[in-house]
Amino acid sequence: MIEKTGGTDARQKVSIADLHGPVEHELGLVQEELSRFFVCDVALINQISKHMLRSHGKRFRPTLTLLVNKLNGEVSQKAVLAATIVELIHTATLVHDDSIDRSFMRRGIPTVNSIWNDQTSVIMGDYLYSKAFFLLVENNLMEVVQILARATHLMSLGEMLEIEKTLDFSVTEESYNRLIGEKTAVLISAACEIGAYLAWGNGKERRLMADFGMKLGMSFQIMDDILDIEGDAQTMGKRTGSDIRDGKITLPLIESIRNAPEAKVRQIRELMSNGIDDHGAADVVTFAAEYGGLDYARQRARGYADQAIELLDDFEDNQFRQTLHDSVEYVLQRRK
Amino acid sequence: MIEKTGGTDARQKVSIADLHGPVEHELGLVQEELSRFFVCDVALINQISKHMLRSHGKRFRPTLTLLVNKLNGEVSQKAVLAATIVELIHTATLVHDDSIDRSFMRRGIPTVNSIWNDQTSVIMGDYLYSKAFFLLVENNLMEVVQILARATHLMSLGEMLEIEKTLDFSVTEESYNRLIGEKTAVLISAACEIGAYLAWGNGKERRLMADFGMKLGMSFQIMDDILDIEGDAQTMGKRTGSDIRDGKITLPLIESIRNAPEAKVRQIRELMSNGIDDHGAADVVTFAAEYGGLDYARQRARGYADQAIELLDDFEDNQFRQTLHDSVEYVLQRRK
Repeated sequence: MIEKTGGTDARQKVSIADLHGPVEHELGLVQEELSRFFVCDVALINQISKHMLRSHGKRFRPTLTLLVNKLNGEVSQKAVLAATIVELIHTATLVHDDSIDRSFMRRGIPTVNSIWNDQTSVIMGDYLYSKAFFLLVENNLMEVVQILARATHLMSLGEMLEIEKTLDFSVTEESYNRLIGEKTAVLISAACEIGAYLAWGNGKERRLMADFGMKLGMSFQIMDDILDIEGDAQTMGKRTGSDIRDGKITLPLIESIRNAPEAKVRQIRELMSNGIDDHGAADVVTFAAEYGGLDYARQRARGYADQAIELLDDFEDNQFRQTLHDSVEYVLQRRK
Repeated sequence: MIEKTGGTDARQKVSIADLHGPVEHELGLVQEELSRFFVCDVALINQISKHMLRSHGKRFRPTLTLLVNKLNGEVSQKAVLAATIVELIHTATLVHDDSIDRSFMRRGIPTVNSIWNDQTSVIMGDYLYSKAFFLLVENNLMEVVQILARATHLMSLGEMLEIEKTLDFSVTEESYNRLIGEKTAVLISAACEIGAYLAWGNGKERRLMADFGMKLGMSFQIMDDILDIEGDAQTMGKRTGSDIRDGKITLPLIESIRNAPEAKVRQIRELMSNGIDDHGAADVVTFAAEYGGLDYARQRARGYADQAIELLDDFEDNQFRQTLHDSVEYVLQRRK
């Protein structure tokens, strides 16, 4: 499945299907569990769930949980359940985020807030969050509760920081790193940590995998921010430039703000502050490219990716470790 | 503090301060914990928290946790923490509810969604929910996690049912009971159950108090729905008739719909379905009164209250049991 390009420096081309491969059977079980968990006896919830299950996401986070878990042998039933719950929580955040960002498309299909409304999205998100914790408790996965309670808590901090830093042109890279760390990386870290905990219990593997997920997650979000600026709307399944329209100052902009002359920065600030149109958004994209922002962000994403890969050295070299390695490449290569 | 009116049938007049009395010291500790938990290093969260702490709520739920806990001796530090967390979760639901209902006033001060916006409310609610579970896990209160994960899950089901049943004139009393049971009573039940669990562990006290809280909560929500129809805006600290405006078919309406002639019901349905004004809302209030809806709802609230009181018989008669008894009367008597 992996297209080898030969040579030590040449990078493999990795698709999401390549990552799914070694845990395909388990992902099938996750999908079955998801279909089961989404359903309840309130008709409106089932309608929304049916709609949401139509958009088959990339299942990136549960794939990581399963791959990490399988590093140490067969995947347990508990690990399948935990992987499913990680995806439930991820979905809950998407439902709330789409409502917050007023996004109308996600994964190529209309969002819950666009078909129903913001109110329904808020409750659907609450339903998915609470179902996730309810299921963990019911299955006595208390250590996983601990990991995910911390993760969701930090995620809400990151989301709030993002609102606070909207259109803040003096935002630092340090503040950006904290923001994306909390908003995105902690859940990817939790996905990996849970897989390790359920394979080895407490110990160095758990810490290493939490760290691996953190670095991978940082790289993931920086690439997400790059794609939002330079991506192609059709490939992404959602509108590009949406961060610019929302006044989010992501790493490519932070770096270009650092490099550009003051007058240019002032011009971009005014453009973004006054309700931007498509033409204006294109100007900001050019700004991010011309003043080195996109290049710098790509370099930072690569830096985090390299740190993630190094952390895999402590694990036995097998098919699953190789696929975790590939997952890092996937993050850097993905176009959506 | 309690104004005795004499005679066996005459009912005491109970204020919220009367309920606070026997656990005043512990409620002070809850308030200190709340001030501490609301704060974090994201400035926007602190601004919102400061605003929210200004509106000193009735602290009804933590008061119940503490009163139940004290039935069996001194209140432990864990019980104070659990009571605080019950209030945190209650506050989280209020923040999401106000955003969902587009309410602008709560407890006499502007809501988070009205000062900031819906997006900020969603994240603030998520912050409070996740902080609550994070704190429980951190303090190893796993049984409490279980109780509250179940409660918040059922609450989201109740909220969704409420959206589904908006303007549904064929809604049954049974469906209403389920809706308010999940939306409101489960958290009041959880507050009591947690107090009992932390006093006696698992056993009949825990089950009895969960049941007591459930009945009390049913009574509480029915009275809330009555007050929304016949209450006084100034006393309530929020607009009355808001349920009618939101198309919520509560028990007073359900009963009047059962009793009124078909033509009258059709008239009210058309009125409520077409964006109601103050004049129209007054017509619906008259409808709820004239066709026996308000009287019937009061009678049902009394019925649940009596069931709650009966459940106290199994506990030793002391000051705290008396105050729990008073809490039932308070629910029936309150004007806000």
